[in-house]
Formats: sequence, C-alpha cells, structure tokens
Amino acid sequence: MVAAESKPKKIVVLGGDGFCGWPTSLYLSEKGHDVIIVDNLSRRNIDNELGCSSLTPIESPETRVKAWEKVSGRTMRFVNLDVARDYQELVQLFVAEKPDAVVHFAEQRAAPYSQKGAKQKRYTVDNNVSGTNNLLVAVVESGLDIHVVHLGTMGVYGYGTSGGEIPEGYIDVILPGGRSSSILHPAYPGSVYHTTKCLDALLFQFYNKNDGIRVTDLHQGIVWGTNTPQTIKDERLINRFDYDGDYGTVLNRFIMQGALGVPLTVYGTGGQTRGFIHITDTARCIEIAVSNPPQAGEKVQIFNQIAETLRVGDLAKLVAEKTGVDINYLKNPRLESAENELEVANRKFRGLGLDPILLDSNLGLVDEVKTIAAKYADRCVREKILPASFWNRRREAECEANSLEGGK
Amino acid sequence: MVAAESKPKKIVVLGGDGFCGWPTSLYLSEKGHDVIIVDNLSRRNIDNELGCSSLTPIESPETRVKAWEKVSGRTMRFVNLDVARDYQELVQLFVAEKPDAVVHFAEQRAAPYSQKGAKQKRYTVDNNVSGTNNLLVAVVESGLDIHVVHLGTMGVYGYGTSGGEIPEGYIDVILPGGRSSSILHPAYPGSVYHTTKCLDALLFQFYNKNDGIRVTDLHQGIVWGTNTPQTIKDERLINRFDYDGDYGTVLNRFIMQGALGVPLTVYGTGGQTRGFIHITDTARCIEIAVSNPPQAGEKVQIFNQIAETLRVGDLAKLVAEKTGVDINYLKNPRLESAENELEVANRKFRGLGLDPILLDSNLGLVDEVKTIAAKYADRCVREKILPASFWNRRREAECEANSLEGGK
Ligand SMILES: NC(=O)c1ccc[n+]([C@@H]2O[C@H](COP(=O)([O-])OP(=O)(O)OC[C@H]3O[C@@H](n4cnc5c(N)ncnc54)[C@H](O)[C@@H]3O)[C@@H](O)[C@H]2O)c1
Ligand SMILES: NC(=O)c1ccc[n+]([C@@H]2O[C@H](COP(=O)([O-])OP(=O)(O)OC[C@H]3O[C@@H](n4cnc5c(N)ncnc54)[C@H](O)[C@@H]3O)[C@@H](O)[C@H]2O)c1
Repeated sequence: MVAAESKPKKIVVLGGDGFCGWPTSLYLSEKGHDVIIVDNLSRRNIDNELGCSSLTPIESPETRVKAWEKVSGRTMRFVNLDVARDYQELVQLFVAEKPDAVVHFAEQRAAPYSQKGAKQKRYTVDNNVSGTNNLLVAVVESGLDIHVVHLGTMGVYGYGTSGGEIPEGYIDVILPGGRSSSILHPAYPGSVYHTTKCLDALLFQFYNKNDGIRVTDLHQGIVWGTNTPQTIKDERLINRFDYDGDYGTVLNRFIMQGALGVPLTVYGTGGQTRGFIHITDTARCIEIAVSNPPQAGEKVQIFNQIAETLRVGDLAKLVAEKTGVDINYLKNPRLESAENELEVANRKFRGLGLDPILLDSNLGLVDEVKTIAAKYADRCVREKILPASFWNRRREAECEANSLEGGK
Repeated sequence: MVAAESKPKKIVVLGGDGFCGWPTSLYLSEKGHDVIIVDNLSRRNIDNELGCSSLTPIESPETRVKAWEKVSGRTMRFVNLDVARDYQELVQLFVAEKPDAVVHFAEQRAAPYSQKGAKQKRYTVDNNVSGTNNLLVAVVESGLDIHVVHLGTMGVYGYGTSGGEIPEGYIDVILPGGRSSSILHPAYPGSVYHTTKCLDALLFQFYNKNDGIRVTDLHQGIVWGTNTPQTIKDERLINRFDYDGDYGTVLNRFIMQGALGVPLTVYGTGGQTRGFIHITDTARCIEIAVSNPPQAGEKVQIFNQIAETLRVGDLAKLVAEKTGVDINYLKNPRLESAENELEVANRKFRGLGLDPILLDSNLGLVDEVKTIAAKYADRCVREKILPASFWNRRREAECEANSLEGGK
C-alpha cells in the first residue's frame, strides 16, 4: 500500500465535540479539508449526570469554532444533531453537503459507564447501534458514494482470548466442510460498550456487501494525552480531559493521580496488557484513513490504530516513578482476565507513513499532561477518580472496600 | 442429552400474538404451563401499513384468550407492552410474575420488509436490537434466574458460504497464534433482518458471560402451515396466515397461489436451498427447549430448529403438481446466491425426542393449508403476493418487469 496524496475533501465529523473528535477536526481543517462537526453534546450532558466534568475548561462548540477561525483563518461549521434520532436531518445534511467522507466518533464510548446500570446499558446499545445504522441507511438513501470511517476498538476481540498477533480485522479459518474462508475476527467483547462495536462491525459488513458502501473501521487502542499541536494554539481550543472512574482512560487517570499526589489506582494485578495511542496520532491516523479510502467493491477495510502495547502495571510504575506517588492495587470492578498478552499488527498504518509516538521515547508528553493536570487540579472532584461502575453484582460487592487514598 | 421431563412452568411469551407465538402459547398452555402473552400488536399495525392482512380472520388477543379458556378450561393472560420501549413495565412484569422462562418471538421478522426502505431498515434494527437488549437487561435487573429462549434463524450464516454441514451454533477454528477455539459460527447475514439476529447473538453471548443469564437460541428454518392441533379447536383460535410479498413465507405463498389458480412466483432459478419446519413442530421444539434449559454457568445453547432442507424450485414443482398451476420465474428481488447447498445438523432436537413432520410424507398438511387458502381466498389482495421490497436500487430496477400473472 502506498499512501495516497492528501487532496482536500469535505468531511463530516460525527462526534466532533468529543475527546478524539475535536482535535481530529482541527487537524483535518489544518490539513486543508472542509470540516463540518456534528454533535448532540450528549457527552457534556453525561458529565452533568455524573456530577463531574472535563478537568480542562472546554468552551462551547460555537466558541471553539470561532476561536479556530481566528487562529487559523479556516472556517468549520458546527451542527447540533443526534445521529441516533435525527435521521431526517442527517440525510438532509448529506444531500445538501455531499461530503466525501464521514468520520464516525458519535458513540457512548466508556465501558464502565455502559455497565453502570440498566439505564446506561440500554442507552449505550440504543445510541450506538441506532446511530451507526442511521448513518449507513442515510448514506444509502442519499445515493452518494460517501466513505464511512468508523472508530472501533481493540476490545471487540476480548483480551487474552486469541493468543497470537491480532491481525487487521480478518482471519482465515477452515469452515465445517473443509472450505477455507476469510472471516471477521471472532468477537468476544467484555462490556456492553464493546459489544456495540461488534454490532457495528456486522452492520458495516452487511451494508458494504448489500449496498456497496465503502467503510474503513479503525480498531483503536486507548488514547492518551490531551493537547495536540492544534489545540494548544489558543486556550479556547483546549481539549477535553476525563479523569473520572467512568470516562478517564487509564494512563490519563494515573497522570492525574500523580499530579494530585494520591496513589495510582490499579485494578487487580495490573497484568492486563492494552494497546495505546497518543491523541496526536489519532488525528493523524484519521487523516490517513480519509485519504486512503477502499476501492469501490472492496470489503470493509480494517486498520489497527495503535502505537504500542503496554501492561497497565508497568504504566503505573512509570507514572509512580515520575511523580513519587504510591500504587494502590484495587479489587477489579471489571470482569476480565487478570493477566493477558496482547500483540497487535499495525502494519497498515505504518505502511501508509505513520511513525507513531511511543511512550518510552516521548516521556515529555507525560509531563505535558502532568502540567495540564496540575494546572487544573482545583477543578478535580477527587472521589470521582475511583471506579463507580461494576461489571455485575458480585463485582460490586467485592469492590466495596476499595478506597481512594490507600489500603489494599 | 436426555430430554427432561416437562414440569409445569410459568412462561412469558413475547410476541405471543404472532404467527409462531400464538400456536406456541396454546401448545404450552395445553401442556400445563402457565402462559402470559406479551405483544404490542405491531404486526397487526404493519398489516395496516402494507394495506393487507392475515388471510385468515384472526381475532383480537382478548377474544383469542377468552376462546381458549372456553375450549380448554385453561387461563392465559395477555399484556400489551412494547418490549423495545416499555422497559420499566417489562421489569415490573418479571418481578411480579417471577417466570421460569421467557420465549422471545417479539421481533420484526420479515427480510423483505426490513429491506423496503429507510424507515423499515431503521425500525427493524431499533425494534429488534433494543427489544433483545431490554429483555436481557430486565432479566439482570430482576435478579431472577430466568431462562431466555430466543428465536433466531438459519439465515445468520449466509446461505452458501459454508459448504459443509451447519453445526449447532459453534465451530472450532485455529486462531492466529495457533490456539484452537470454539467460536460462534461466523455471521454473514443477507438482509437487515438477518443482521439483527446476528446482533442478538452477540448480546446473548455477552450477557451470558457477564451475568450468567441462561440462554437458548433456536436457529429456526422457514415455518410452513397454518393450524395446529390447538388452533383448530375453535374458529376464534385460528392462526395468522401471511401471503404477501413481504411476510408470506415461501411455501405458504406457493400454496396460496395454487389455491388462487395463479402461477407460483419463484425468485431467480429456484436453486436456493432452505431449511423448513412445520408450525406444529415449532411449538413442540419450544416446549422441548423450555423443558431443557442450560445449566447454570453453561454458555449459550444453540439448537438448529429445522426438520429438513429443500430447494425452493422443488417446492414450487411439488405445489404446481398438486394444484395444476404454472411456475413463473421472476427476477430475484433479493441479493443472494442463485444456487446453494445447505446441510444442517438437527441432532440436538432429535436427541430430545423430536420426530419432525417432513413435507414428503405429510402432503396432507399441504392440503390442509390449501383448504384454508381456498376458504379465505376472497380475503386475498392478489397484487400483494408479488415482491414489494428490493434489496438495493439495482435489484429494484431489474425487477420492474416482474408481474403476477405470467411472462418471464
Ligand atoms: N478515547 C479512547 O481512548 C478511545 C479508544 C478507542 C476507541 N475510541 C472511540 O473513538 C470514538 C470517540 O471517542 P472519544 O474518546 O472522543 O469519546 P467522547 O465521548 O469524548 O466523544 C464522543 C462524542 O460523540 C458525541 N455523541 C455521542 N452520541 C451521539 C449522537 N447520538 N449524536 C451526536 N453526537 C453524539 C458526544 O457528545 C461526544 O462529543 C468513540 O466511538 C470511541 O469508542 C475511543
Ligand atoms: N415465520 C418464520 O418462518 C420464522 C422463521 C425463522 C425464525 N422466525 C422467528 O420467530 C419469531 C416469530 O416469528 P413470526 O413468524 O411469529 O412473526 P410475527 O411477526 O407473526 O410475530 C411476531 C410478534 O411479535 C410482536 N412484536 C414485534 N415487536 C414487538 C415489540 N417490540 N414488543 C412486543 N411485541 C412485538 C408482533 O406484534 C408479532 O405479534 C421471530 O423472531 C422470527 O424472526 C420465524
């Protein structure tokens, strides 16, 4: 594969107000693309529901877009629309704008939140599955050849079930009867959230086969970092930073704890291996994906969007060293293997020119996040850092003794 | 496996007003179980939308239930509730009634309808996925150990992709890295409807693993026939009979055409092989499944609920012979393989005592359906027999020349 040259495109970014969507929109805009952000601000509403908010003081989408125009001279539009409910508006947007590509970030994306209770389980499934289906039906109805770029996750495979290098999306198996077949990598998701991503994958497979929709599904690792070269250009462009037990992703949560001087909370033994990628690379990968759509008639293109794999316990040690805090091993609120190996192919993005940011050689970026965490530490609601969602009743009971400051 | 003795249970039948659900409810009741029917009557509303209705004059659920009480001396209850929307009512029902099992028929079940247009694609996904997820979340929230029995379809595998005998749900494959693993049979669905059944399967897999819900997923073939030994006991108990291009399943549609004296409409070459089962056996299989729940901790139990496989063209010839009408080969409105082999294991149900009704040795049952079709022929809206939904734009254009009465 040779990277296509990046020609300016018109791109709709669904979920463009979020942690990944906002910096990606800025990067795409800076690269010369015409960006329309769509978001229903549900993530900000969930902040209200959970009684906490982005550690960084994020501006309204309108202010953000205006600030970007001031800073860059480039316009971006913002449309408040619910992808899972406002179907007609979505079709109208496509028909009116004729985008070349739609980048789909607009899902409820926290595994712990998706396990919190009946309301959150139902919301996650309804929002994510209806949203993805609406998007695909709208592309069909528009009659346009829009390239759909979706954010999936490594977690669809179920950590620790494979035991080999996770290929980019498909595996060759022998079916009963002896015929060999290239199938979607078997799904064994570990949360309601991860399950919705597997449902998405089946929807992509179907609409690709039946209607010829061109789809790129990006199986992304856990994103770390806050700012990108674009978001630091103006305080009003600052990116969202989640540190709470539901939305805070592991490395960012550790750095926050380090900045506050409280022990890092590792779930279980810390033997879980996960894939990671820096937020700056998220944006770069999306731009590469948009610039390299599948051919007409090609099946769903799947890329593993990760820079490296690391053990959670090793991450904790690294942050503990840099910040001088202790590590507190908590009972795991999740139902998952205590330890797992994880080896992931990322040859496709590398082949298209990605030279990813690795944690070890970019410890300066940890400092950058630490500086942010320290700067806004007074905005942190400390007790929100602890796990607040439990995979099932038994886990909830087992985790009762967990506490923020210490103990085992 | 040895069949468990059938002890009376309390059973909630979701979708118990439908073609399969109604006769199953009667059979379960006759067998001594305590049956509560739940249905939102959406299928009757879709009849209104399509401008046609059951060929047989079906009574309201209230009248049906009363008639059954008269005939059998056994009471059944009917609750009007939308499984996909009335979540709280569903939980309350479970908590109040403490059922042993829930049989889940409550889905939009026609592949052609699910392909009709944007509205129907969206409705099918929203209704089916939200309904199944609600059911599972409600079982978790109730804290009860309710056995979920779900109606799936053979079509989740994609006809003609396997090439060997389709096993009962799982296949053993070698994963990258060399480890062998028993995975859900890969899904390659051929319509939005079939896709929702694959989504259901992933939801079952997840809630079974995470919350220990006991699930039996029945991969059913195409159901034929109308009445059962229970529904013929009283005219007011008569079962639904769909003959239209969207909901009429293939054999029943042929018999209807035979009774009307119009040519049978075969899509494409008729080389498609499908699995079939008689409606009386549907009810018997469900009763067997309810009486043989998986053990606690067991993974999702998958049964192929089919009696035999037959080629659509051969079915047409059989009905043409019995009725003296011609066969009209239409352009296929579906996107599917023109010809396929299909071999399906049904050892599990046979092992539990099912001795299924086979078409060849029960041609009398075809006559029974023919009698019904002839009796109510004046209720038939002839032009509704033709395909009215097309898999994609190209198919729609290709099918323009299709007509009911003749021509190629
Ligand atoms: N953050 C990570 O570590 C990570 C890792 C792997 C994959 N992903 C995937 O990337 C995507 C973006 O993640 P994120 O971290 O930016 O999440 P986020 O919650 O910060 O952003 C998602 C955005 O989508 C919006 N949204 C949600 N539902 C919507 C709807 N129905 N209509 C319109 N807008 C809607 C939200 O308001 C929010 O602004 C998600 O799909 C997520 O699963 C994220
Ligand atoms: N008929 C067949 O040939 C066949 C073959 C294989 C599998 N199945 C499966 O068996 C099940 C029943 O099929 P059927 O032929 O009886 O279909 P049907 O449409 O006659 O019955 C389904 C019933 O469910 C009800 N329903 C739908 N959505 C509901 C909701 N949200 N809340 C409450 N009730 C709801 C409808 O009103 C209807 O009465 C379906 O899941 C179908 O996929 C049927």
